[in-house]
Amino acid sequence: MLFVVGIGSGSERHFTKEAEEVLNNVDLIVCYKNYKRFVERFNKPIYTTGMTKEIDRVDYALKEAKDKDVALVSSGDATIYGLASLAYEINAVKGYNVDIKVIPGITAASLASAILGSPLNHDFVVISFSDLLTPLETILKRFKCALEGDFVICIYNPLSKRRREPFLKAMEILNDFAKDKDYVIGIVKNAGRDKENIVITNFKELYNNLDSYLEFIDMNTILIIGNSSTKIINNKMITPRGYLDKYKI
Amino acid sequence: MLFVVGIGSGSERHFTKEAEEVLNNVDLIVCYKNYKRFVERFNKPIYTTGMTKEIDRVDYALKEAKDKDVALVSSGDATIYGLASLAYEINAVKGYNVDIKVIPGITAASLASAILGSPLNHDFVVISFSDLLTPLETILKRFKCALEGDFVICIYNPLSKRRREPFLKAMEILNDFAKDKDYVIGIVKNAGRDKENIVITNFKELYNNLDSYLEFIDMNTILIIGNSSTKIINNKMITPRGYLDKYKI
Repeated sequence: MLFVVGIGSGSERHFTKEAEEVLNNVDLIVCYKNYKRFVERFNKPIYTTGMTKEIDRVDYALKEAKDKDVALVSSGDATIYGLASLAYEINAVKGYNVDIKVIPGITAASLASAILGSPLNHDFVVISFSDLLTPLETILKRFKCALEGDFVICIYNPLSKRRREPFLKAMEILNDFAKDKDYVIGIVKNAGRDKENIVITNFKELYNNLDSYLEFIDMNTILIIGNSSTKIINNKMITPRGYLDKYKI
Repeated sequence: MLFVVGIGSGSERHFTKEAEEVLNNVDLIVCYKNYKRFVERFNKPIYTTGMTKEIDRVDYALKEAKDKDVALVSSGDATIYGLASLAYEINAVKGYNVDIKVIPGITAASLASAILGSPLNHDFVVISFSDLLTPLETILKRFKCALEGDFVICIYNPLSKRRREPFLKAMEILNDFAKDKDYVIGIVKNAGRDKENIVITNFKELYNNLDSYLEFIDMNTILIIGNSSTKIINNKMITPRGYLDKYKI
């Protein structure tokens, strides 16, 4: 059987009881090489591959899962930019006929929101700016629709040294929307890990200092753009649910 | 100090290590009365209030937190339709000056996605259909923008016996979008709890049997609408990330 296990973002303290139990009971753990350190404590055989080797990793895990219990580990949540869909797809395409169960985990959006205050406390969008698997025009169309809907927007994989175009084009779109208003922006780098770094600012400040943000933001960064109600309260980024307005407090 | 603690959706197995640790160490737990059963095992004094008493609950928790460690418990994630923002807001408005820390939890979207297969495995929207605190026109505008962006859409609080209008109006909007295509729909009722019930279908079937779905869907239901790539594979609802297309598998 194959368990696709989300181990949460950040560190050991975000593992759920269910993830602990599954990892304690499987015969083999398969994961991205940089996550090995998070699962060594279970004392199981570990098979790792590097970045962009997702298909090899999933295929190996499925083949082994025919006669073993295997955990395919995703950071965060296994179904949110994780490997769960790929496991179901390869299992079907190659006819492996393996039973698959997904174990949910704390996704980076939840952790970043908790660290920044409570920016996700109303309707929100989660969008990845990586154009490796998604056409740039799809990313930008979605970003624009999210702004039109006044959603809080949580951006995964905002930019890397080699992939700046989606971020830069999105900031131009946001600049159009910011003509007569501003947006609170929260940035969390290395959430829950060493060198965690947080910035809470607004779009106009970010846009005026774009070069330094291009240096600061990387693939281990989550960026959250507030909706029209999001505000800064005691240095925290807060999106009200609406209780105070409704009950006149 | 006030800890706003997400205890995950479903059951004890989704508690994180951090949530366990905090609840083992606080002096008082404050929660909605129906969640008392999830935290009795920590053997702490528990203060509960009922539905719509969120402000009383948060205010009480903050006042007690001036000289105690208090856990204000949210199901799911504390910042996703939970009480974290309200705690920050009341703390500021009333000048309580209490330190607040949010402990993230598994939100219902993650759990429902894991149960259905992997529908959230690409850009998605989380939206609540409750119009208690949000105007109906805002809900419907957001829903339409989400469809225009071809996001996967995860709906919290889809309908209750007394509040059917947002759901019915949204289904009319979806019907307009479904003229020349269909949408995979996943429904999870009582996710991870007793009487868990799952339906994976498509929009046209749901729309043709709307009356029976109005009976089935309730406030403990999560409804996920797929994007244009979402499909059903071996009875699971899967949104591809795009690996198979890119690598021609």
